Amino acid sequence: MKYRLLLAFGALVLTTLQSRADELAAWKDGPTKTAIVEFVKATTDEASSAFVPQDERIATFDQDGTLWVEHPIYSQLVYCLDRVPALVAQKPELKNVEPFKTVLSGDREAIAKLTTPDLEKIIVSTLTGMTTDQFAAEVAKWLSTARDPRWKRPYTELVYQPMLEMLKYLRAHGYKTYIVTGFGQDFVRVYAQKVYGIPPEQVVGSALATTYGYAKDGTPQLVKSPKLMLNDNDAGKPEGIHLMIGRRPHAAFGNSTGDQQMLEYAASGDGKRLSMLVLHDDAKREYAYGPAQGLPDTKIGTLTQALYDEAKAKNWVVISMKNDWKRIFAFE
Amino acid sequence: MKYRLLLAFGALVLTTLQSRADELAAWKDGPTKTAIVEFVKATTDEASSAFVPQDERIATFDQDGTLWVEHPIYSQLVYCLDRVPALVAQKPELKNVEPFKTVLSGDREAIAKLTTPDLEKIIVSTLTGMTTDQFAAEVAKWLSTARDPRWKRPYTELVYQPMLEMLKYLRAHGYKTYIVTGFGQDFVRVYAQKVYGIPPEQVVGSALATTYGYAKDGTPQLVKSPKLMLNDNDAGKPEGIHLMIGRRPHAAFGNSTGDQQMLEYAASGDGKRLSMLVLHDDAKREYAYGPAQGLPDTKIGTLTQALYDEAKAKNWVVISMKNDWKRIFAFE
Repeated sequence: MKYRLLLAFGALVLTTLQSRADELAAWKDGPTKTAIVEFVKATTDEASSAFVPQDERIATFDQDGTLWVEHPIYSQLVYCLDRVPALVAQKPELKNVEPFKTVLSGDREAIAKLTTPDLEKIIVSTLTGMTTDQFAAEVAKWLSTARDPRWKRPYTELVYQPMLEMLKYLRAHGYKTYIVTGFGQDFVRVYAQKVYGIPPEQVVGSALATTYGYAKDGTPQLVKSPKLMLNDNDAGKPEGIHLMIGRRPHAAFGNSTGDQQMLEYAASGDGKRLSMLVLHDDAKREYAYGPAQGLPDTKIGTLTQALYDEAKAKNWVVISMKNDWKRIFAFE
Repeated sequence: MKYRLLLAFGALVLTTLQSRADELAAWKDGPTKTAIVEFVKATTDEASSAFVPQDERIATFDQDGTLWVEHPIYSQLVYCLDRVPALVAQKPELKNVEPFKTVLSGDREAIAKLTTPDLEKIIVSTLTGMTTDQFAAEVAKWLSTARDPRWKRPYTELVYQPMLEMLKYLRAHGYKTYIVTGFGQDFVRVYAQKVYGIPPEQVVGSALATTYGYAKDGTPQLVKSPKLMLNDNDAGKPEGIHLMIGRRPHAAFGNSTGDQQMLEYAASGDGKRLSMLVLHDDAKREYAYGPAQGLPDTKIGTLTQALYDEAKAKNWVVISMKNDWKRIFAFE
């Protein structure tokens, strides 16, 4: 009888391990995958000293470079550039004014050389002056037609399959998953439910103010205005998490220096914590950039050697896209 | 057979109605209670033209005067006044400086005469300069010992039983319930889960900024700073709802002019909406104030005749504490 019981128990363990493996099928077996499974096990098993009650399980994810592709340039920046013709049609006086003139020229080299203040001008002028409903409708329209330059696919297909599995895996174990993005929360909220299974109220991001008022027919509306409310980068990430969530996450995921403080904040709480850093070291299947570990410094999604070293010193987990991920995209 | 079927169906309807009545036991039968039940029925019945998918069901509640007592003065203001001695102990140079001197004197009449700028000075200086964790611990300690002047009970017992039932009733029907308070979200988040069943991430409120940094031992921390991030009153309520939730609520609950825009915003969406306004017309069991409907104008939680008229004109529902509520408090 004992032998039979042992066999039954063995089969149960095997089934559990297999179903776990299936949930994270795009991850290669190895220390990275094990770290994820061990974290979830420790924080969700009532018998564990690191057990976290279900309503306190919070996991936060950077978006660009962590959940989806951020090269050659951030998708929301492409959206803003693509909106310039419509903006100039509404405000013809901008036609011969820089930086709008350069964007209208279509000269890719000149556009690539635009300065940060130029880009900020474009961002602010294309993201404001309309109601929140109009903005959401414009973004949805753009997402349905825009294609990225390399794979010629909608941007919303350029999400990392292993991270989608991670989101589902954490949710299946009672975690509430949040996006904490340096880009605009109004932008990401348009597709977060469909693409990531994350509802609008679980998207934290940079935000311009809105102004409450009334349309001509008296209907209440919110108009997007140029005042910056939240800059959700660097220290702004833990500050935004406190403002919008009010709890310290138990797990956090990022890929660049803009995520450093969020990863530190999550890692420094009591009990078992998981801070993960995606290393873009796969030039063939995606892109390779750092400059950590001698990877090229491309200025978009910078991961410094200092942050890489901090991760290693503090036992955060570095995800190598090349070595830890069997597949990068669902469409592969 | 048909007759039997009809009987069975009748019994089922009766049971359903009775269980509904039990869920809202502190509400008297009548048009107000019916409006609540009809709203929930219409928005949660898949066969209804006003059906709302579960993940879009959002209900927002003002706190002071809507969920709990706000007279004779707001509880968080009492907290700030009670913190003045501890503040002066830390910063003895404030001892002879107004308005701190008046607060330390304990002279109730003089304290009642403090101006708004005086109160703002007290609020900002007692709510900032400590870490978010220290603040939460201080609030929890205060809540466990402070007693209100009339009922001599913890402030957290002065919540309206009918509104607690409403929160539970909405949640039982798939609604996500939020507090949207003009007072500080960090304050309300300390007790919202325990008192209202609302987790910290579903508390929206006025907010001072926090600053990310490191304690002497290198541990990351957030320090509360005097910069106002969100003024969650008047137009700030729908603006805060958009920032923090990103969806227009289907139901909203308030009691004063500070809630007007939130009630308008909720009411003006598509489909069936519920905007409710609590009228404090029960001097005996709670307090009576307006000045709508000839009630005394007490300057705390003002409900103007104009807002009352707007509510009536737009078919919002006015809740009469006197006539619609069987019980006010659980402890009665």
